[in-house]
Amino acid sequence: MQGEIVEQLRQVSTATVTMQLLKRGFRTGAMTGLKPWGADAARMVGPAYTLRYIPAREDLCGAPKPGEPPTAQRLAIEECPPGHILVMATDGEQRCGTIGDILAERLVVRKVGGVVTDGAIRDAGVIAGIGLAVYATAAVAPASMNYLHPVEVQRPVGCAGAAVFPGDMIVADADGVVVIPQHLAAEIARDGLEQERVERFVAREVRRGRSTLEVYPPSDAVKAEYRRWVEAGEPA
Amino acid sequence: MQGEIVEQLRQVSTATVTMQLLKRGFRTGAMTGLKPWGADAARMVGPAYTLRYIPAREDLCGAPKPGEPPTAQRLAIEECPPGHILVMATDGEQRCGTIGDILAERLVVRKVGGVVTDGAIRDAGVIAGIGLAVYATAAVAPASMNYLHPVEVQRPVGCAGAAVFPGDMIVADADGVVVIPQHLAAEIARDGLEQERVERFVAREVRRGRSTLEVYPPSDAVKAEYRRWVEAGEPA
Amino acid sequence: MQGEIVEQLRQVSTATVTMQLLKRGFRTGAMTGLKPWGADAARMVGPAYTLRYIPAREDLCGAPKPGEPPTAQRLAIEECPPGHILVMATDGEQRCGTIGDILAERLVVRKVGGVVTDGAIRDAGVIAGIGLAVYATAAVAPASMNYLHPVEVQRPVGCAGAAVFPGDMIVADADGVVVIPQHLAAEIARDGLEQERVERFVAREVRRGRSTLEVYPPSDAVKAEYRRWVEAGEPA
Amino acid sequence: MQGEIVEQLRQVSTATVTMQLLKRGFRTGAMTGLKPWGADAARMVGPAYTLRYIPAREDLCGAPKPGEPPTAQRLAIEECPPGHILVMATDGEQRCGTIGDILAERLVVRKVGGVVTDGAIRDAGVIAGIGLAVYATAAVAPASMNYLHPVEVQRPVGCAGAAVFPGDMIVADADGVVVIPQHLAAEIARDGLEQERVERFVAREVRRGRSTLEVYPPSDAVKAEYRRWVEAGEPA
Amino acid sequence: MQGEIVEQLRQVSTATVTMQLLKRGFRTGAMTGLKPWGADAARMVGPAYTLRYIPAREDLCGAPKPGEPPTAQRLAIEECPPGHILVMATDGEQRCGTIGDILAERLVVRKVGGVVTDGAIRDAGVIAGIGLAVYATAAVAPASMNYLHPVEVQRPVGCAGAAVFPGDMIVADADGVVVIPQHLAAEIARDGLEQERVERFVAREVRRGRSTLEVYPPSDAVKAEYRRWVEAGEPA
Amino acid sequence: MQGEIVEQLRQVSTATVTMQLLKRGFRTGAMTGLKPWGADAARMVGPAYTLRYIPAREDLCGAPKPGEPPTAQRLAIEECPPGHILVMATDGEQRCGTIGDILAERLVVRKVGGVVTDGAIRDAGVIAGIGLAVYATAAVAPASMNYLHPVEVQRPVGCAGAAVFPGDMIVADADGVVVIPQHLAAEIARDGLEQERVERFVAREVRRGRSTLEVYPPSDAVKAEYRRWVEAGEPA
Repeated sequence: MQGEIVEQLRQVSTATVTMQLLKRGFRTGAMTGLKPWGADAARMVGPAYTLRYIPAREDLCGAPKPGEPPTAQRLAIEECPPGHILVMATDGEQRCGTIGDILAERLVVRKVGGVVTDGAIRDAGVIAGIGLAVYATAAVAPASMNYLHPVEVQRPVGCAGAAVFPGDMIVADADGVVVIPQHLAAEIARDGLEQERVERFVAREVRRGRSTLEVYPPSDAVKAEYRRWVEAGEPA
Repeated sequence: MQGEIVEQLRQVSTATVTMQLLKRGFRTGAMTGLKPWGADAARMVGPAYTLRYIPAREDLCGAPKPGEPPTAQRLAIEECPPGHILVMATDGEQRCGTIGDILAERLVVRKVGGVVTDGAIRDAGVIAGIGLAVYATAAVAPASMNYLHPVEVQRPVGCAGAAVFPGDMIVADADGVVVIPQHLAAEIARDGLEQERVERFVAREVRRGRSTLEVYPPSDAVKAEYRRWVEAGEPA
Repeated sequence: MQGEIVEQLRQVSTATVTMQLLKRGFRTGAMTGLKPWGADAARMVGPAYTLRYIPAREDLCGAPKPGEPPTAQRLAIEECPPGHILVMATDGEQRCGTIGDILAERLVVRKVGGVVTDGAIRDAGVIAGIGLAVYATAAVAPASMNYLHPVEVQRPVGCAGAAVFPGDMIVADADGVVVIPQHLAAEIARDGLEQERVERFVAREVRRGRSTLEVYPPSDAVKAEYRRWVEAGEPA
Repeated sequence: MQGEIVEQLRQVSTATVTMQLLKRGFRTGAMTGLKPWGADAARMVGPAYTLRYIPAREDLCGAPKPGEPPTAQRLAIEECPPGHILVMATDGEQRCGTIGDILAERLVVRKVGGVVTDGAIRDAGVIAGIGLAVYATAAVAPASMNYLHPVEVQRPVGCAGAAVFPGDMIVADADGVVVIPQHLAAEIARDGLEQERVERFVAREVRRGRSTLEVYPPSDAVKAEYRRWVEAGEPA
Repeated sequence: MQGEIVEQLRQVSTATVTMQLLKRGFRTGAMTGLKPWGADAARMVGPAYTLRYIPAREDLCGAPKPGEPPTAQRLAIEECPPGHILVMATDGEQRCGTIGDILAERLVVRKVGGVVTDGAIRDAGVIAGIGLAVYATAAVAPASMNYLHPVEVQRPVGCAGAAVFPGDMIVADADGVVVIPQHLAAEIARDGLEQERVERFVAREVRRGRSTLEVYPPSDAVKAEYRRWVEAGEPA
Repeated sequence: MQGEIVEQLRQVSTATVTMQLLKRGFRTGAMTGLKPWGADAARMVGPAYTLRYIPAREDLCGAPKPGEPPTAQRLAIEECPPGHILVMATDGEQRCGTIGDILAERLVVRKVGGVVTDGAIRDAGVIAGIGLAVYATAAVAPASMNYLHPVEVQRPVGCAGAAVFPGDMIVADADGVVVIPQHLAAEIARDGLEQERVERFVAREVRRGRSTLEVYPPSDAVKAEYRRWVEAGEPA
């Protein structure tokens, strides 16, 4: 079931998702300020697996040493399930990166679905080319322990202005990252797919010269045209 | 006349425009924080057509419904004249987009000259490829009615730190967007063209190894060299 | 000697440099918010030559005229030694550019190693293509004298959150710009090179499927594997 | 009628007004970042009279000279009706003041109800003592024409994050400034007054030692107690 | 024991606490941007009890209704132990208040030691007068559920740039709020008290006309003078 | 001479100073974001003595130890001449204080005229009561060496958006801090005094009920009235 929702949402833009959210009374849900990092970031979809950071404290956060027990960050890298999106909440800390090339390589091996952070990443030049979808605010050199301490996984977090509960559906594309509450994912996937089809029709009519005031949002007459277009197999 | 000014300004960089403004006592006129969106944004020129937004209010701003009277935004899309630049002032609201793919397609059909906003756009992935010059601060998913209410067109606005009066000349390139007061457009186009030619000569001399202290700004002797270079047909 | 350090650091990422700094007790040193401008910016290394600006004052800062004595900015362009990095400190002024195409061309002719500024640049479209590494916060049209007054060269400056003393080693790549205190440059170059090699081995093991908890940071057993891998000529 | 609404709202806190707005589906309406200036600012109420500024342009905005036609700002000072609140929208410009002591004195003489601006004021030391309620973001020395140009009065504006239409009811106290849409002012005044009375009762019970979980929001049993308290004349 | 530490720290300024932290290698620990609210806020000390918020989601955060299960916020108000400081982490949300007058009254009744939040408060006019120490970033009218959802209590949080673990010692005065890691509270209280005494002596000598270069930090000779001053009963 | 200018400027508000600057073509000169700290800050005037900080580096900036050579900061405290204003430029660093109570006491003893910083102060509770005029952006606990390194004195600096050259005249009141270029101080003092007198007359007329459009700026007729009022001894 969740796999089907994910497949449907891969065909739905974040712009459409937020319109479906607005129709249900939600003006929240979109993160702000995140950019795709690397060509592979386009159209990322999957359930959220969360990791929460707080500001660093010098006695807790030094250069890593062999034999130390793994931090919540290191566990998250190994435990985020395949297909899930690792959402790292930092309160917007941009002076250090939440993830670097070695951990990113591990996520690729583990078939994690992507990474979202309101903080920064490091080794961005490498990460851009390894086939991992990443949305972040910046690229910086220092490692996370310079300014961040990882606290816990799989708790609700705030990330770039949006609430994220574990299991919420994350959808991202060139417009950034949107969060769908878990209980609404199925219906928003379904209605979003239909909205995408309507908008393909409307865009076609606009390109053919019709006024947006006439065709958008579609009146009953335009809806009838739309249905005929669908029945005709959606001609170009 | 205005067409000729536009053609001249297509050959003048925004850097040169602002130097011409400074020579006339203007340190203002350049917007800050806007980026070109899509490959087609380079060197956009045209007179401003303005649209002003204020923050949204829930009873005025919901998902669009067929049959509602068109908002100022929807009218602007249909009424901005060909060749004009649609300037949308939002006070820098980055949580929602002032324009999406369908409205952008309509602007292309209507041969509008481009779009400038101190807010964000949505459907940025599509817009980047449809042949419309767009300068904005960000790309986000939510539609404008989530956080913005369109009020009126063709009134003076502030946009990204610059005053814009309807009819002011907008010039944009990789350095962002600059506003030329309408009554100065002709003389700045003329003098800007000449400044560009001088700078081509100076850059040539610099590439040939001369000190910038010698050739920039050009002394009377260098100006004489410049005139000979012009008379010689501007050899490389 | 300095040439050797520069060559070594060309093979060390800024991420690695900051980890070497952290191991020596430095959490500072990385600038924030700078982006490479143009394809040539990747992996820039060289000693810092500094230029300091303060806010402009109208009687000191007008359009340049022939015959005026050169400002500290103009002198810096002519005096920054080949291979050095011109670091221009502006307190983050983004309303005007610290450098334009003509001055940038001169830096290329003079074989300056690159440019770093916490302000903006102008003529960014041209600069991106002339073979000069530039790290800056933004591209804008107005020239520096609109909002900035150059004061002096080769004094300690703050730039994008980092202290820079003349002669400090600047290293930059896709993760931004990092400053190495001059007296640490040799040892950080040496240890950074070794860290890069260890991380190549670790990344290889991660790509082969091993857990990051097992191989990073390497235990004594993994270090032994690493040494065998080095002795075997670092097989892929 | 409007006078009665104003009198009722003088007894309703802005905190209560926003709760009444939330109950009607409005999360917007509160301005952010404004502070009362001077002891007289507490509990300001009145309908909005709006003035809109855009960024200054050097040829339009100089030191005032006798005989110039009055700007929209100067007209607003003379035309804002008694009891109304002068709302000056500047997009948050804090480098210059929208009003100084002489204009403020005039507003006192004209019995204007107060001033709200998302910009700054000047002559703050004088204004604090002349009996005018002012809410602003800062106090600065430069006059408005340094960075602002007044455009028009009595149009909808955005101010400190809230939409303000002429005639909307402005309510302000130590928590800042809130806007009530004009058509809701009467019912929010009425229901806000009742909410204030309920909260006086609840606060009394809390001070007597009851748990907030028991009395807030009041259950049916507590509501019955409340009604008896009202009938008893609201004993302390 | 903890009571004794609290009593000692009441005589130690936050400036002194941070110097003691720096001597132990901590540059972190001070929050930024918080102001005391009300005259009672001076010199607040106590162990931290934490409450964490994330951004609101419309289906979870509406006007409170009787009979709903209490949120983490409401539980925190009833469960924060006497003498403890309620630390509310919001990621700096300033559009709504984390606490209003009724909940604040309850904290006074329950003898809670004070409130710290990187968000705002509401009913600030009332709270300023009820005898509760509060440090916050702003005062605003809207209630917390407009933009915030309370998630959990007594977990580590980031607040105004500092890490706060439950039980860490909070110290606040006119310079803002500082966090002492729990395991360092006793020694910092002891050494801070002594530093305060040394500084009283140094300030006395400075007021008597000696150079700060001579007496601060005290040389061995000045330390000997100090000891005599202490033995003499600290004469004025 | 300088003493006379200072005495004149004590009777001229910063609002008036900036208007005199604007009449001479200066829109710059006012700092932004600074607040008076303590009751003694009102109407501070004196020539600038500058101190410049850059970001801290861990090996240069630790807790002070006896016997270390004095830093530029410590020298500035001992060398800033009586009556001068100590201007400390930090690029707006608000995480640590540029000055605490002991150094402030020394400035009082040394009869320094006041302190201006675009950073923060510490021990603000004490400083507010010792009779020193201080303008700063915030009060925080950590000492300067946590995040700042003092570099040099008596060089031009940027402070809170304004250029400050040593010897420039600093004027401050409730509207903040303004810088007068040294060569303009005498004429601005003289013309500012006269402007203050004109404005006292205008304010008097406004309080008597005349329209601001009639009396401000004064027409020739009103100027004649003004001269009679001056000749009559400026009756109330």
